[in-house]
Amino acid sequence: MSPFERRTRACRERLDARGADALVLFPSRNLYYLTGFSETPGERHLLFVLPREGTPTVLVPELYGEQVREATWVEDVRTWADDEDPRARLGEVVDDEWTSVLVDDTMWARFTQDLRALLPEATFGLASEALAPLRLRKDDAERDALRRAGQVADEVVEEVRALGSEAVGMTEDDLAREIARRLDAAGGSGVSFEPLVGSGPNGAKPHHAHGTRRIEAGDPVVLDFGTVVDEYPSDQTRTVVFDGEPGARFREVHEVVREAQAAAVAAVAPGVTAASVDAAARDVVEAAGYGERFIHRTGHGVGLDVHEGPYVVAGNDRELEPGMVFSVEPGVYLPGEFGVRIEDLVCVTEDGCERLNHTDRGWRCP
Amino acid sequence: MSPFERRTRACRERLDARGADALVLFPSRNLYYLTGFSETPGERHLLFVLPREGTPTVLVPELYGEQVREATWVEDVRTWADDEDPRARLGEVVDDEWTSVLVDDTMWARFTQDLRALLPEATFGLASEALAPLRLRKDDAERDALRRAGQVADEVVEEVRALGSEAVGMTEDDLAREIARRLDAAGGSGVSFEPLVGSGPNGAKPHHAHGTRRIEAGDPVVLDFGTVVDEYPSDQTRTVVFDGEPGARFREVHEVVREAQAAAVAAVAPGVTAASVDAAARDVVEAAGYGERFIHRTGHGVGLDVHEGPYVVAGNDRELEPGMVFSVEPGVYLPGEFGVRIEDLVCVTEDGCERLNHTDRGWRCP
Repeated sequence: MSPFERRTRACRERLDARGADALVLFPSRNLYYLTGFSETPGERHLLFVLPREGTPTVLVPELYGEQVREATWVEDVRTWADDEDPRARLGEVVDDEWTSVLVDDTMWARFTQDLRALLPEATFGLASEALAPLRLRKDDAERDALRRAGQVADEVVEEVRALGSEAVGMTEDDLAREIARRLDAAGGSGVSFEPLVGSGPNGAKPHHAHGTRRIEAGDPVVLDFGTVVDEYPSDQTRTVVFDGEPGARFREVHEVVREAQAAAVAAVAPGVTAASVDAAARDVVEAAGYGERFIHRTGHGVGLDVHEGPYVVAGNDRELEPGMVFSVEPGVYLPGEFGVRIEDLVCVTEDGCERLNHTDRGWRCP
Repeated sequence: MSPFERRTRACRERLDARGADALVLFPSRNLYYLTGFSETPGERHLLFVLPREGTPTVLVPELYGEQVREATWVEDVRTWADDEDPRARLGEVVDDEWTSVLVDDTMWARFTQDLRALLPEATFGLASEALAPLRLRKDDAERDALRRAGQVADEVVEEVRALGSEAVGMTEDDLAREIARRLDAAGGSGVSFEPLVGSGPNGAKPHHAHGTRRIEAGDPVVLDFGTVVDEYPSDQTRTVVFDGEPGARFREVHEVVREAQAAAVAAVAPGVTAASVDAAARDVVEAAGYGERFIHRTGHGVGLDVHEGPYVVAGNDRELEPGMVFSVEPGVYLPGEFGVRIEDLVCVTEDGCERLNHTDRGWRCP
């Protein structure tokens, strides 16, 4: 039995336990997790209908037929042609006696509207109710892929640091492209998200991607990027100064963030709550007087989705379990000046955690 | 008034005409179209609430606050922190007297579920009811961006063709990376979709992206790619043979597809239906005996979304209007052998159409 089929069996047990009649997925990581078919969302109806019992069905546009049949263990693959109404075909697959249906959390409103029209009496919940608990603990194969994705990102961090003074004068856009190119060359499959290159004051915007600003000597530069290996992503951040000397305030803040990150990683262990890992980082930043400038949670889970549970945030009393993988990424942002963020992925083990990123956490480049 | 504000005004008129109380968007092209803020969907609540009358509001995670305020004309930008419940904040923005709400067509189920919980009495429709008619006809600025995106793709097609025998031995993955790199170098912002490089039998799967197969002499190779300029995408396809001589059947099929594409482009004019453009291509392919192997529609609209209306497909009796932009891309797919697709974008003019792609449509490389 393939891992995908095994996961589907576990998912059906969860549907049963929740009293849900069926699960309906569209192109998403959940779809890959259960069927082995990977695709991005599009405007055509491409749906996986998994009843609690009975035959699972994939309904796909005709032009995907061959690919889907090659990729998945699901035997009932039905195709619809561009001149057919896919909603009528969907009507043949769903059962109007279903009263409780779970839909993909990321399913587009246009598809959930169709399901609601076909099943007006049903109540709808989210697929994560059944799938998130399964996906939260990574099995050996998943951990292995995450580890290898981390290694590729680490190699590229070291290459980029080694640019040193060569990076001065490059635009953020140039450096982001260079990072993407190097991730591929090092064995990754593209980027796990648009690389973030935040130089100088741009670093103070945590989700600034990259722009036309040129890196200057003495600039702190936030470098947050990852790649994908066998469908699993990496995600790490270093804040570096390529050349020249940064100001005293940056050196102080960098040290605070580094200590906060180390404290949070040290706090990770089975049975500890996600919130307490967040608190371990936040306590260090607050004690240093920068609590107000640590404006995001400490981390997020990473698996098939680069952002998934467990969320490392105040209020999340979920206890950590072996196999959970998440980021530990405290940051301090001083608008108009600079930002500092340091991030590693960690995997919870039986007695602590394993870091999936290992490069130097300091700011100085060789 | 910015173009974004002008479009929002037009959108409110449409809400009024439809009796809708409000429109709610999340990160999407619709959001960019109205606010000027561009972002990809994520798991955090980032919503634009536009009541038919009264103050429009953007509700964003705190870490996006600065960026959103810089990007948009919307004055009421409210932020929520990671330790707050964004659903409670959303409750402050929506009005429980609303009975008819339009939500983004691509809004994730997890967010529409929240809106339904807050507005249990409301009926929900799709934002495209109000926005699609506005977005369908491109204004001068939009056409200009589409034209420039087409030029960048065309430059790279010519560069890639010029590889000739150098491309033999490359894997599809290598060539896809090379295309992406060249699109950036030629002035594009990344790819408008993952480039498709379908060599030999892989070309027979219309949505095969790229893989480890090495290109051989005599292989037909389907090259379908585009880039983005000022948020607007390009999308074109050529089917080429880099070196060596292909078989007689490929030469025949390529000629059929080329004639079908020319016939469909010639059929484009205001007042003509989208279906009749599809028929113009299909008639040529059917007359040649390959009708069964032309397994997709002839084209799709292109604007902020690389796939949007008008769909050039049998049954779409929508009449073309000046300013509409769509692809014309007939294809023939022989499983296990090869595929052929030729695609240009066209813009409907007052008396016909303007092609946005201009490179050689033949298969031979220099």
